[in-house]
Amino acid sequence: MSEVRVHNFTVSLDGYATGEGQSLESPFGHAGGRLMEWFFGTRTFREMHGEGGGTGVDERFACDWNADVGAEIMGRHKFGPQRGPWTDEQWQGWWGDNPPFHTPVFVLTHHPRPSIEMKGGTTFHFVDASPARALAMATEAADGRDVRIGGGPTTVRQFLAADLVDRMHIAVAPLFLGRGVRLWDGLEGLEQRFAIEPVTSPSGVTHLSFTRR
Amino acid sequence: MSEVRVHNFTVSLDGYATGEGQSLESPFGHAGGRLMEWFFGTRTFREMHGEGGGTGVDERFACDWNADVGAEIMGRHKFGPQRGPWTDEQWQGWWGDNPPFHTPVFVLTHHPRPSIEMKGGTTFHFVDASPARALAMATEAADGRDVRIGGGPTTVRQFLAADLVDRMHIAVAPLFLGRGVRLWDGLEGLEQRFAIEPVTSPSGVTHLSFTRR
Repeated sequence: MSEVRVHNFTVSLDGYATGEGQSLESPFGHAGGRLMEWFFGTRTFREMHGEGGGTGVDERFACDWNADVGAEIMGRHKFGPQRGPWTDEQWQGWWGDNPPFHTPVFVLTHHPRPSIEMKGGTTFHFVDASPARALAMATEAADGRDVRIGGGPTTVRQFLAADLVDRMHIAVAPLFLGRGVRLWDGLEGLEQRFAIEPVTSPSGVTHLSFTRR
Repeated sequence: MSEVRVHNFTVSLDGYATGEGQSLESPFGHAGGRLMEWFFGTRTFREMHGEGGGTGVDERFACDWNADVGAEIMGRHKFGPQRGPWTDEQWQGWWGDNPPFHTPVFVLTHHPRPSIEMKGGTTFHFVDASPARALAMATEAADGRDVRIGGGPTTVRQFLAADLVDRMHIAVAPLFLGRGVRLWDGLEGLEQRFAIEPVTSPSGVTHLSFTRR
């Protein structure tokens, strides 16, 4: 049975998964890179950008993100900062020529545009679809492998609200962003659907593992 | 040097420290007793109500709450559910004839009323005062011992915003309350003022220790 998974998704202690004021230069707005600092230290991240990196508990969570994943679903603002109709289709997202996904990626947007085939196996598809419909497309594309819900917070929250997530790794970073987009709004009783296991890391992060009951 | 401390204050994973709909029968509103379940299992709690109770990490945090504390400051809704002018001064709060504080307790309210002397050394004083002014009164009453900020969330948040807290123990319970009163609103950058150490407990709670830098 293939699973729907969330990985390495990080929130501040006050619950924000991204800051205020997203722009081309600041994908996380005023949060900058602070939410993902624990991830930048892991071997999984370092190997995308050279070598080295830690192999402890942060890495044990980090390295799980892409194993057996056959497709990703992401919100439009994980692809780029644009709002409204696309004005520049030449720009191909924050993820570089060879994005780290290496699978089909379904970008949720009310403004569909032609798919973009990148190097390394990543193809961005732009779809205006409900969570359930997007998941059906991604599941078909994943061809028996799992589907990752890649974020951002609005997307993860929508899939949680629709009860479409099987397991989820959330890292809680010891930060107070104060403003931005919160992950947890409107999810009363989520603990009834998931077993939740917290574990702390020397990096200061608390990793939460959610497993569907 | 005496310290200003917060203890055993519990929030849900989505950041609520109390639920919606507080009433005489439901001090935590729709949250019921769920936030404090980790505490109900500790020896510190059990000894107030009989005997027994765990002695592990939950108890290590729980038992610290009253040592060297000479006064408490609490919000009005930790005393009782009334809003506006007091209509029944006969009712003496949720804490019974012999409240567990055994010190002066300053209850913040815009509606002062005469102090109430209870059994066991607890006296409730009702004061309409800013956090700084209330702290000055409590510090004097504590006579060299520490002052505890007892809650609820609005009170703790006000004292944090005014930078009047020296150390703080927050327990994060694996619950999603969805509604109620949040603790963390408007505290951007709090991590710059406090070292934050998380530790998990077998009860499922994550204990956060905040120590002023």
